[in-house]
Amino acid sequence: MHTLWDERFALRTDNLKSSAIRELLKITSLPDVISFAGGLPAPEVFPIERFKEASDIVLTEMGEKALQYGTTEGYQPLREMIARNAGKYGLKISADNVMITTGSQQALDLMGRIFINRGDRVLVESPTYLGAIQAWNAYGVKFVTIPFDKDGMQTQELESRLRLGIKFIYVLPNFQNPTGVTLSRERRKQLVEVANAYGVPIFEDDPYGQLRYEGEHLPPVVVLDDEIRAKEFPIYSGNVIYTSTFSKILAPGLRLAWVVAPVEVIKKLVQAKQGCDLNTSTFNQYLAYQVANDPWMKSHICVIRKTYKERRDVMLKALEEYMPEGVQWTKPKGGLFLWVTLPECIDTQAIFPAAVEQKVAFVPGGSFHPKGGGHNTMRLNFSNSKPELIVEGIKRLAKVVKDNLK
Amino acid sequence: MHTLWDERFALRTDNLKSSAIRELLKITSLPDVISFAGGLPAPEVFPIERFKEASDIVLTEMGEKALQYGTTEGYQPLREMIARNAGKYGLKISADNVMITTGSQQALDLMGRIFINRGDRVLVESPTYLGAIQAWNAYGVKFVTIPFDKDGMQTQELESRLRLGIKFIYVLPNFQNPTGVTLSRERRKQLVEVANAYGVPIFEDDPYGQLRYEGEHLPPVVVLDDEIRAKEFPIYSGNVIYTSTFSKILAPGLRLAWVVAPVEVIKKLVQAKQGCDLNTSTFNQYLAYQVANDPWMKSHICVIRKTYKERRDVMLKALEEYMPEGVQWTKPKGGLFLWVTLPECIDTQAIFPAAVEQKVAFVPGGSFHPKGGGHNTMRLNFSNSKPELIVEGIKRLAKVVKDNLK
Repeated sequence: MHTLWDERFALRTDNLKSSAIRELLKITSLPDVISFAGGLPAPEVFPIERFKEASDIVLTEMGEKALQYGTTEGYQPLREMIARNAGKYGLKISADNVMITTGSQQALDLMGRIFINRGDRVLVESPTYLGAIQAWNAYGVKFVTIPFDKDGMQTQELESRLRLGIKFIYVLPNFQNPTGVTLSRERRKQLVEVANAYGVPIFEDDPYGQLRYEGEHLPPVVVLDDEIRAKEFPIYSGNVIYTSTFSKILAPGLRLAWVVAPVEVIKKLVQAKQGCDLNTSTFNQYLAYQVANDPWMKSHICVIRKTYKERRDVMLKALEEYMPEGVQWTKPKGGLFLWVTLPECIDTQAIFPAAVEQKVAFVPGGSFHPKGGGHNTMRLNFSNSKPELIVEGIKRLAKVVKDNLK
Repeated sequence: MHTLWDERFALRTDNLKSSAIRELLKITSLPDVISFAGGLPAPEVFPIERFKEASDIVLTEMGEKALQYGTTEGYQPLREMIARNAGKYGLKISADNVMITTGSQQALDLMGRIFINRGDRVLVESPTYLGAIQAWNAYGVKFVTIPFDKDGMQTQELESRLRLGIKFIYVLPNFQNPTGVTLSRERRKQLVEVANAYGVPIFEDDPYGQLRYEGEHLPPVVVLDDEIRAKEFPIYSGNVIYTSTFSKILAPGLRLAWVVAPVEVIKKLVQAKQGCDLNTSTFNQYLAYQVANDPWMKSHICVIRKTYKERRDVMLKALEEYMPEGVQWTKPKGGLFLWVTLPECIDTQAIFPAAVEQKVAFVPGGSFHPKGGGHNTMRLNFSNSKPELIVEGIKRLAKVVKDNLK
């Protein structure tokens, strides 16, 4: 219903709509529906006992500070811990390179806020993360896409795009949301080189970096970038802005993530964040520090990896077993998602109601393409469903696909 | 230092700077400085034991849900509790009229986001809350000010301003930040009538409504507005968007506040919030519900009132005792702040370094005037310092004032 309020809303809200996923989640939270639609971690791996202990310590020993306002940059010991951990991956940063954000969605929003003027171009993979599309649409972004295959963005196509004038390049190098695809080592190097040559910053979104189930760890783009000028500068002052999150390794309910960037960028992000929410929950930052700054964390990540690897394997096997010929899917080496491509004749948006009727849900792939495409694709989440439900869900999904192949 | 990054930042960041208060807080957090500069609650009244119990219950009984992603609107029982409480003040709303935000700073930001196009006018009191100035500057707002006296905004001056075309009116009716002044009952009525006549929405910011230390409770503007059309509509669908917070009655470290608005506005706010941080910390919402949905809450608010009333009284008495002739101040009936006006010849920004040298701090009043003015004023916070420190701090401040009167 159109009301007089609609006449008052700002222009930037015109293309503001609830994300497809969000609307789907409402449907798929109905009982009996096996949902591969969300991007939720498995609640079974939340370290609840650890949180109980941590919460008790934080409130008993530093309650007055943990419940008070905090600085916009974030809790200093947490920033220092993140800087130390980055060091282990070969990245020389100090706490001054780190800002804590209210989930990495806030990092996406702040990137739009400090960089995007209406009409500015941002280069994204296609498909790319829906939350980024949503965040930057609010700033009037013009998306430029780059072709994408089993090794990630086709970096040989970078130069022709960068010549258009690009504000920054958005990349999810590890187990990309939505496809599960990993950017190859060679392409990471090429991305860094070309971006530096053209002076275009890279925004690296890495929520799943630690959730690798097989193969060798690849260096984050920010590390490769740092290697170029590491001798010149004592702390990071390169061309990459990096974000990661505690949502997948601790719990999303804390809304805690972080950005690593050159100090000048951190300063501007901090100024922008001040107007958004003053600071990220002090209490949650103290909690996360208490839980994560402990050798136990390493074993906890192993538990998550083991759990999700099993679920991924079960889903891959079920797809193999039940899907008809002509259906293809990615085999992600980590993360939470895989990507299914159906024969051209099937529109995943169109078969969605039939799937829900069969009590199974997914996200139609079209939503992840900022400039259209992907009508015959879908994203499946494997982290949030128990193995037996994954098998049953894929069976149901395969039935819907077969019914629509006829 | 100007760097190449500065060339990349978006236009909207041009007038983005760290708030004066924030920079001051850095100085004033030095040891020995008695700071009246911040807006911090007293940590002595944080209900730490209650939080410990609540955290234990939440994690034990509903840990898997409390640590997971939540809906953007907020935790349903918390929204319902807020709707029930509003009912006690005579406001008929349902949970659909309520959205949870990440502190009320986020409510301010979202208001800018959904309403303000570059160049749109917003009517504010002068002085007004600094966080609002900061939040809306990022959206290219043009502030229009309305004169202000001991009874709040001079509503007889409203019509001439509304004729300019105003997107919304921003008002802090109770114990305003920064002045401590309360909008009189008559003016509340007039505000509602004129705003309705001109079809201009009101944004009511009420962080301190429950922290009244004397005098009778005055109805919130949203309640007066609802009375106009209460018979027509079963739930609130009026002209006021209202925000309040748990920061002053529980703890700011949770970053929890809420908005009450017509359903159409809540929907748009929710869409906007999705792009900002997906949802407010689920865990903190469960905690707040556990702590606040209890008859104990009433006695807790009495404790806060008693503590702050004492501190206010101590500050008023000390001002009386130590300040030289020609210095005036407000006598707030609640809240966290009072407002001092010095003789015209003193510039509070200019004497700030001398004050810090004397180990006492305040916020110069100029920062709260979006269009200039207030050079001889200052904001003093009385909630965060213990009584003996308040006396000593005012003594020091009076010395600085006297030194600069000569």
